[in-house]
Amino acid sequence: MSLHDPDLSLIFQALADPTRRAMLARLLEGPAPVGALAGPTGLALPTVMRHLGVMEAAGLIETRKEGRSRFCRLRAETLRATEGWLAGQRALWEARTDRLEALALALEAEDAVRPGYGS
Amino acid sequence: MSLHDPDLSLIFQALADPTRRAMLARLLEGPAPVGALAGPTGLALPTVMRHLGVMEAAGLIETRKEGRSRFCRLRAETLRATEGWLAGQRALWEARTDRLEALALALEAEDAVRPGYGS
Repeated sequence: MSLHDPDLSLIFQALADPTRRAMLARLLEGPAPVGALAGPTGLALPTVMRHLGVMEAAGLIETRKEGRSRFCRLRAETLRATEGWLAGQRALWEARTDRLEALALALEAEDAVRPGYGS
Repeated sequence: MSLHDPDLSLIFQALADPTRRAMLARLLEGPAPVGALAGPTGLALPTVMRHLGVMEAAGLIETRKEGRSRFCRLRAETLRATEGWLAGQRALWEARTDRLEALALALEAEDAVRPGYGS
């Protein structure tokens, strides 16, 4: 996955798991060795590595070997890109809502200049 | 799922599928009958209904029966809540980055008032 082409399916799949969201929350505080991420989960190391693999494939984290430990680091640009996608969806929705409101106002104004019942 | 307690696991699971994201994009333009959502996908109706069920369980859409048709409507508040969660994660990350920068500046200032090598 390139930096400029985030795979939303992989990202949302990675974020859909509460254990992975908890690991991500820990990485917001700074890089951490795998052991520090595994500890609070109470999960076996292979399971933890599988979760980290899902997040790394989605571009949400990157890992590197340092001596005998593997360190994980958040890739904030992927979180930002995902937030940007959601903001774009919301903008489309709000543009439509604005158009509907403008239409409603235009119809009201038209009613006001036309003699109606009871006026 | 209550309005004020969006289930992020269900939401991200729903957003992780490109067919469901395409249906959501269509609903940004306004409510639509199931048939209009199914058409562009080329999928069988049971498959379409399953996708819509996943999105409805996540609170991303709601559906209602109207005569012989079932209409789907986006629930924009769920999109907003999801965007809000991502914005919150980013804010935590940026707060940490700001703290690191402040620390770096403080260390630089300390170096400046201390006689160093070559000064």
